[in-house]
Amino acid sequence: MGSSANGVAGDRTGTSNGSSSVDKGVDFANYFCTYALLYHQKEMLCDRVRMEAYYNAVFENKHHFHGKTVLDVGTGSGILAIWAGQAGARKVYAVEATKMSEHARELVKANNLEDVVEVIEGSMEDVTLPEKVDVIISEWMGYFLLRESMFDSVICARDRWLKPTGVMYPSNARMWLAPIRSGLANQKMSDYEGSMDDWFYFLDQTKTYYGVDMSVLTKPFAEEQKKYYLQTSLWNNLHPNQVIGTAAIIKDIDCLTATVNDILNLRASISSSISSEETRLCGFAGWFDVHFRGSKENPAQQEIELTTAPSEDYSTHWGQQVFLLHPPISVSEGDDLNINFSMDRSKENHRLMEVELSYEIKKSAGTLLPPFRNKFYIE
Amino acid sequence: MGSSANGVAGDRTGTSNGSSSVDKGVDFANYFCTYALLYHQKEMLCDRVRMEAYYNAVFENKHHFHGKTVLDVGTGSGILAIWAGQAGARKVYAVEATKMSEHARELVKANNLEDVVEVIEGSMEDVTLPEKVDVIISEWMGYFLLRESMFDSVICARDRWLKPTGVMYPSNARMWLAPIRSGLANQKMSDYEGSMDDWFYFLDQTKTYYGVDMSVLTKPFAEEQKKYYLQTSLWNNLHPNQVIGTAAIIKDIDCLTATVNDILNLRASISSSISSEETRLCGFAGWFDVHFRGSKENPAQQEIELTTAPSEDYSTHWGQQVFLLHPPISVSEGDDLNINFSMDRSKENHRLMEVELSYEIKKSAGTLLPPFRNKFYIE
Repeated sequence: MGSSANGVAGDRTGTSNGSSSVDKGVDFANYFCTYALLYHQKEMLCDRVRMEAYYNAVFENKHHFHGKTVLDVGTGSGILAIWAGQAGARKVYAVEATKMSEHARELVKANNLEDVVEVIEGSMEDVTLPEKVDVIISEWMGYFLLRESMFDSVICARDRWLKPTGVMYPSNARMWLAPIRSGLANQKMSDYEGSMDDWFYFLDQTKTYYGVDMSVLTKPFAEEQKKYYLQTSLWNNLHPNQVIGTAAIIKDIDCLTATVNDILNLRASISSSISSEETRLCGFAGWFDVHFRGSKENPAQQEIELTTAPSEDYSTHWGQQVFLLHPPISVSEGDDLNINFSMDRSKENHRLMEVELSYEIKKSAGTLLPPFRNKFYIE
Repeated sequence: MGSSANGVAGDRTGTSNGSSSVDKGVDFANYFCTYALLYHQKEMLCDRVRMEAYYNAVFENKHHFHGKTVLDVGTGSGILAIWAGQAGARKVYAVEATKMSEHARELVKANNLEDVVEVIEGSMEDVTLPEKVDVIISEWMGYFLLRESMFDSVICARDRWLKPTGVMYPSNARMWLAPIRSGLANQKMSDYEGSMDDWFYFLDQTKTYYGVDMSVLTKPFAEEQKKYYLQTSLWNNLHPNQVIGTAAIIKDIDCLTATVNDILNLRASISSSISSEETRLCGFAGWFDVHFRGSKENPAQQEIELTTAPSEDYSTHWGQQVFLLHPPISVSEGDDLNINFSMDRSKENHRLMEVELSYEIKKSAGTLLPPFRNKFYIE
């Protein structure tokens, strides 16, 4: 049987929720492997919003780096480590789990920072550093902040290697949610329905020509297709005018103190007011921002923000994550949404997420519509 | 860092060439997982050429099945096992490594064959059957026949479970190679060059705005891109008029006697005559056919062929595998090609292949052009 996929984006395997008991080979096959590609590193290096934020965060806060020791968690190409070195760090440890570390080492050398930046190949959970550090810098954020669960490795690094007086770069992270409109809702429903039409034609053909009744598979097939077309969050680059109500913070993380437990099972209750006139609530968008503020004891001189909110002028490779509703619901200005949001790690793969969104609409006239509840998968 | 891939088609991991020492979790993450999806099973069940061939092979050779014991290796949805049951088998063991086995079990029940067909979840290398069988039926062929290396599992099944008098379905398999013309050659070169242009722009921007000289990565980036755009074989559905010379058999397998060693390192020297007038040799296409002939002692009553050769009327989900040359070479009718073909398993993933194609062109006028040699990857 011919199959084009050799490991499919979104397919899940693995063992548990805690990264400590994840099979490393499986984790590599599912997760780390893309980061070993220069093409993928380049995509991130071409994200100007990302680059500008980290560049400015470092070079407008040299006091945090000059003469200090730095750890770059998941250095990839080595860019952050190189900047830390250029900002005057005494020593930078740049840890990278994949063979990309060899390219990082070349890059460090070509930029004359061999004496300052030491690239170490290995996982943060396994490597040993010769000393604790003043700064941990890392670009760990996945789609909707926590997809990929890389922050676990940053927490591990912090608990093992950050001095009590140390600072985190970034220092804070927030997850946001807002109601949106989007043509994707109709499109995905249309794709799903087309897929089911095709299924019934297939059932008929298989019975007629091959004498096998496959109708018992209709239910599981429909579930699989529903999950794929309707319940899997989508990457999208939204225009701000698609955001139809107030955005709210569903999670606020202090990178200096957060624990893995804090981010394992997210629960939030938020409100949003519809700000568009007559429109359709097609779903919700999730995004994040991070800030570089230093610490209370050792603040940044220049606070920098990196946001992935929908923007007319800026887009990032993260886009936003879109959770679509079927069918969309008519709403108007002044309607209020009470939303319960929960996010947990997928049992099969701790780097993927399962989301539950339930919400009630309180019409501006006062009527309370029956609550909706939907399950989603961040794959 | 946001990454959309969670396991990327083509990324490789794993341990060795022999399937015996492959980590099962890694193998699942890289390979088996797609087969657990009904959508993927349906794609194969919708391949009419495939379905017709196996259906006819079974029902026009009922003497091989009636009252006999059968083993279906990699039963997937259970279709072959069900047909074997409908053709009168006394007992069918349907082995499936993924959770698709649960759907197969449902399908068997819904088609009233519970008493005949026993679905067993597990890998062929691990399961134990209560008895040996008269027939092993399996649809194990990957792109260009051997991609996925599933035949290893069929050989294992045969050596453990086939009676000395047993027959294999299919009984024979052949790999073919032919010179072709294709617009893809120019397209891929264009894509590669565009990618490199983009790289140099990126280098310039990164130096100008971010003070980091990434030129030391040009060579590895170019190699990575060259491999991706120019050296990775492509799935294609060729029109017969794209085949510009005689096709030749590069491997002939007797499924009753072949060993894993026979298919580990393929070496073939073949010739091909250009049959088109002035044309461009853009590359080579590889495809396969299988035959259902039974055995010498117990032949088929009706021999059936399943071919994936380029055809005007028929296409299969296997398509053909296309190995492109850069640049294409002008050839004319009567020119001869002497081709050396070799194929070995990828060290990182035994289910993927590395191919070397070297060839000399002897012009019809008699001139012998210098030989070419190219390396390719079947991902």
